[in-house]
Formats: sequence, C-alpha cells, structure tokens
Amino acid sequence: RARRDVAALVGGAVDEIAFTSGGTEADAIGVIGLARAARAAGRPPRLAIAAIDHPAALGAARALAGEGFTVSEIPVDGGGRLALDALGDLLAGGAALVVVALANHEVGTVQDVAAIAAAARRAGAWTFCDAVQAAGKRAIDVAALGVDALALSGHKLHGPQGIGALWLRRGLEMAHPAASGHQERGRRPGTENVIGAVGMAAAATRARVDLAHDAPRIAALAARLEAGLRALPEVRIHGGDAPRVGNTVNAGFDGALGEDVVTALDLAGFAASTGAACTSGTVKPSAVLLALGLTRARAVEAVRFSLGRDNTAEDVDAVLAVLPAILAQARRHR
Amino acid sequence: RARRDVAALVGGAVDEIAFTSGGTEADAIGVIGLARAARAAGRPPRLAIAAIDHPAALGAARALAGEGFTVSEIPVDGGGRLALDALGDLLAGGAALVVVALANHEVGTVQDVAAIAAAARRAGAWTFCDAVQAAGKRAIDVAALGVDALALSGHKLHGPQGIGALWLRRGLEMAHPAASGHQERGRRPGTENVIGAVGMAAAATRARVDLAHDAPRIAALAARLEAGLRALPEVRIHGGDAPRVGNTVNAGFDGALGEDVVTALDLAGFAASTGAACTSGTVKPSAVLLALGLTRARAVEAVRFSLGRDNTAEDVDAVLAVLPAILAQARRHR
Repeated sequence: RARRDVAALVGGAVDEIAFTSGGTEADAIGVIGLARAARAAGRPPRLAIAAIDHPAALGAARALAGEGFTVSEIPVDGGGRLALDALGDLLAGGAALVVVALANHEVGTVQDVAAIAAAARRAGAWTFCDAVQAAGKRAIDVAALGVDALALSGHKLHGPQGIGALWLRRGLEMAHPAASGHQERGRRPGTENVIGAVGMAAAATRARVDLAHDAPRIAALAARLEAGLRALPEVRIHGGDAPRVGNTVNAGFDGALGEDVVTALDLAGFAASTGAACTSGTVKPSAVLLALGLTRARAVEAVRFSLGRDNTAEDVDAVLAVLPAILAQARRHR
Repeated sequence: RARRDVAALVGGAVDEIAFTSGGTEADAIGVIGLARAARAAGRPPRLAIAAIDHPAALGAARALAGEGFTVSEIPVDGGGRLALDALGDLLAGGAALVVVALANHEVGTVQDVAAIAAAARRAGAWTFCDAVQAAGKRAIDVAALGVDALALSGHKLHGPQGIGALWLRRGLEMAHPAASGHQERGRRPGTENVIGAVGMAAAATRARVDLAHDAPRIAALAARLEAGLRALPEVRIHGGDAPRVGNTVNAGFDGALGEDVVTALDLAGFAASTGAACTSGTVKPSAVLLALGLTRARAVEAVRFSLGRDNTAEDVDAVLAVLPAILAQARRHR
C-alpha cells in the first residue's frame, strides 16, 4: 500500500517505485545507475546536468567523470531556467542521460522538464528528474513529464527523515552502484524500512489530496511575502522572473550579509536560510546564485524564505514587520 | 547523545560513529571506502574476505574486482571458522583490506577477529568487521578486536529498520562510494535520520545494559533447544563444534526439505528460516552451508532457529513438541 500511495503522487505504477534511504540516495543511484545502464546499452558516455541542480545529483554526475563519462553542466539564465539551446547543442552529439531538477532547491525555479525530456528522447538519451523540491508543491505526472526516472524525499513532504523513493519507468533496469542484495529488485538493497515507507506514503497521500487546496493558499502567502519584500528599499528577488514552485522566495538585501539576517531572524523566532555555506570563518557564496549570474558580493546577501502548509498570513506579516530593523542592523554591522 | 550511545556499545568514541541507512550500507561503504582508501595510500589492491560472510559484504568485495582489486574468498572449516593459514598465505603477498564478520548470519560461528586483525595489521592491511549479527549478543570492544572499521544494524538490536552505523577508527578517512554531501563528515551523505538514530541508540543502550543478564539466559535456551534437537533421530547441528553466538541453532533434518519444515512451523505459530533462497521453483542451497562442506542435498535440509530476549523455555519446549510430527510429514512429502 505504501508503494501504491507514493506511486499515486507522481502518476506512476506500484512496481515502478523503489524505496530508498532518502532523496540523496535516490539521486545518487538514479543518476549513476541510469548512466551506467545507458552506456551498457551502447549510448555515448555523455551526460548533461543543469548547473544549478542539487549537490546530491551534481556530485553523482561528477563522480561519473571518473569512469569515463563526459559530464557537461548546462548553464541557466538569470531566472534559473536551463539554456535549451546549450542542451540541444550537447545532445546533437549523442548522450546517455540528461539530469534536471523539476524545482530548484534554492530559488524554486521550475524547469520545462517535458521539453527537456522530449529533446533528450529525440537524441536517444534518458532523462533523470530530481523532484524532491517539487513534490507536494505542484502536481507531478511522470507520463506528462516524459522522464525515465524521478527522485522523491519523504521529509520534504512532511513525512519522516531517512526515507525516499526512486520512480523508475517500467522496462528500465539498473543496479545499485554500491550495495548488494535482492530487496527492491536489486535497485536498493538492504532490509526494508517499513515504518519509513508507511510514513512517507501517508505524507504523499495527504500532499496529493490537499494539493488543490494548499498550493494556491501557499502561493498567495508567497506572493504576499514577495510584495512586502519588494516594498522594502534595496531588495532583489532572485529568480523573480521565472516560473517558480509556489513556496520559495529567495531575496537579497543590498549591503546586508545573508548569514547576519538569518541569525537575527532566528533570534526573532523565524527560520530562514541562506544557500551559502560558512566554512572556517569565510562565507562561500551559493553555487546556484553564481550560476544565475550574481556576483559573489550579491550572492552572499541572499536569504531563502520557504512557506509551508502550517504558515499563515500573520506569519508573513510578522516577518515583514521585523525585517526593517534587522536589515538596518545587518547593514550597519557589515 | 545517539552517537555516544551507539559508540558505547562497541567501546568506540563519539566522533568515530557515522549513522547509515542500515547494515547493508554500513558493509558496502565500509568495504568499498576502506579498500579504495588503502589503495590510495599505496597498499596492494588485494582484498581477503571470509567465504561465509554476508552477501552485503561479499557483494561489495566482489564489486571491487571490477576496479582492479584481486578479491580472495578465504575458506572455512566444517564449523565455519576461517582458515587462518590460508589467510596468512594471502597476506604474505601484501593486501589492502581483510573483511570478516564477527558472527555468521546463518550458523552463528564466531571468528577469532582479534587474531585475524593482528595478522592483517602485521601485513600492513586494514580490517573491516561486520558485527551486525554479533552486536547485542556478546560484548564488543573495537580496541580489543583491533579492527579498523565495524558495521552495526539497528533492527538486529531490536531497534528500528532503516538505520545502522559504521564505526571508523579515528584518523581513518573514507568517502561514500555513491552519494555526495557533507553529512556524517562525508562518510554517509544525506539528511540525517534523527528518529532512526535515536531509536537505534535506545536499543544499543538497552542491549549493552541487559547483556550480562540476557546473554547467558538466551544461551541456555539455545542449549536447551540444541539438546532437544539432538535427541530427535537423524538431526545434524551445523557449525556445532565451533564457538557460536549464543542465540543461533542451525539444524538439518535428514530427508526433510528445510523449506517444508519452515512452512509447517509457520503454520504452527513458530518463525524459523532457511538460509536457502527459493527462486523460480527450485531451491538454491545456502552458500554458507556449502562453504562449511555440506553437500547440496544436505544444505537444502537446513533450518535456522534464532532465539531472542523475548523467548522462554516454554517456547523452546513447544517447538520441540511439534517438530516430530512436522518432520514425519516433511519426510513423507519429500
């Protein structure tokens, strides 16, 4: 039943779902497994991946370079949309696999995956889609997308941590790149995490049933937040002119370090994040924002706001109310 | 705290524990990660593994053959004990890694891991120990064993499924063979399964605290079961003359197919298992029992009984009471 309910979230069939230990493993085994299977089937060892994809998928793709694959990171425009012409140029030479996330994890940009998968198919390549950030936030139909494999995460749907799923189109076969065993038809060996699977399925069902009600409500909240942010001085909305998943607003505040804003918001009771990683005292700007064309100075100013089904208009108004003082402080601090 | 409590079960330090998605992943990433790290450190690409090890470890070792490692499966004697002379011969030529399970998953044989690890160390090789079947059933001390890495599973300790741990000796570093990300110091990337880790830690603490009480009681139950089985006609106890983990009794009933006995026991309310795999109507004998020197005909007669802390002497007597009729029926059936 858990398998059926997770399949239903993406319009797949019950035997097309393999449970994994999370989105990271679903990305890793899907990208590596499909690339190797495609090469074994005689396709050219070339792989294309969106430059702004999640580190779980990018890392798997880059690892394939160590076994003879040519890995091309396809650029995006200022809104985060994949450059279809660059992809087309690459595919003209033949390829094994195209990897693309349906929604970006930092700015929320939604790609035209159906067009990307169609282009891949015309070139004889398979398409792997990371839907971790999109599932539960918009309707997903694997047939309409035309992809060959798709990754999901339990906790991104409000399910438990430690569980995810890989949808694999019927007829395709692939082996797990590291583990050995018969479970999940060899796609993901190891004793099955039954509690995790049941928890993820319950979350998937609720996400699917509630989507028609939740998605417009959350999108309205995000629009309210974005409008409020735009009313503040010297604010940039990243990926603002592209189609986005309805819950993400990524904003940059000129002259204020994102890390300082997030820390001050935390003290005020609001959880936000930066895409940046702070390593040994220096702030490393988000690779996603750099790929969108931001300078390093602008990229480290970014703050990501994510809204969920438990948020209200009062939450949005409350964060907008505290921001002016926080920004003034952060700008002085810098 | 979860990390500390799991470390305490094996005498390790808190920073030496990486949580994994289970024993299979701990085996896979430990074997592959250490073998690659040893080769990168200049050791000869040779690996020795006990021929009766778990498929999770054997599969990982065999996969390394595909990247240039010479993989030797070390034979065992009739009790399942590793042939130390064969290991010594192999190590004389230099090696990267020795892989051995502390307790076997089908017959319960306990290896002299301290002697094996000492021999490996003298030859400049690291030792990976799969302790999945031993943890919670006997005391484990990584320093006394002298191993470099050790795998654990949550649900084998009565904890949840979907969680395991890899103990890695401080100072050693290895990368996950498939996934990319910063979690668990890169040893096991992916969002942490917090509930699973806490559940495993609670189980580890209970196993550690209760061991002095439970282990002798369960061993006495196993001895009672074994004595009762030996009193039946035409019964063999596999691995019977070797040191064994206290809860496992693997018996063969001459002329009765193990699968038939297990099915009849199930109908009578007892859960037992065979080590054999039933694939498309034909019974494939256990690789472990074949390695112990059993013929295929004898190997498919085996039934594994496992006792745990919830079992009582009444359970043992009850299964012994139903077995004669079940065996008579199974022998006629065959």
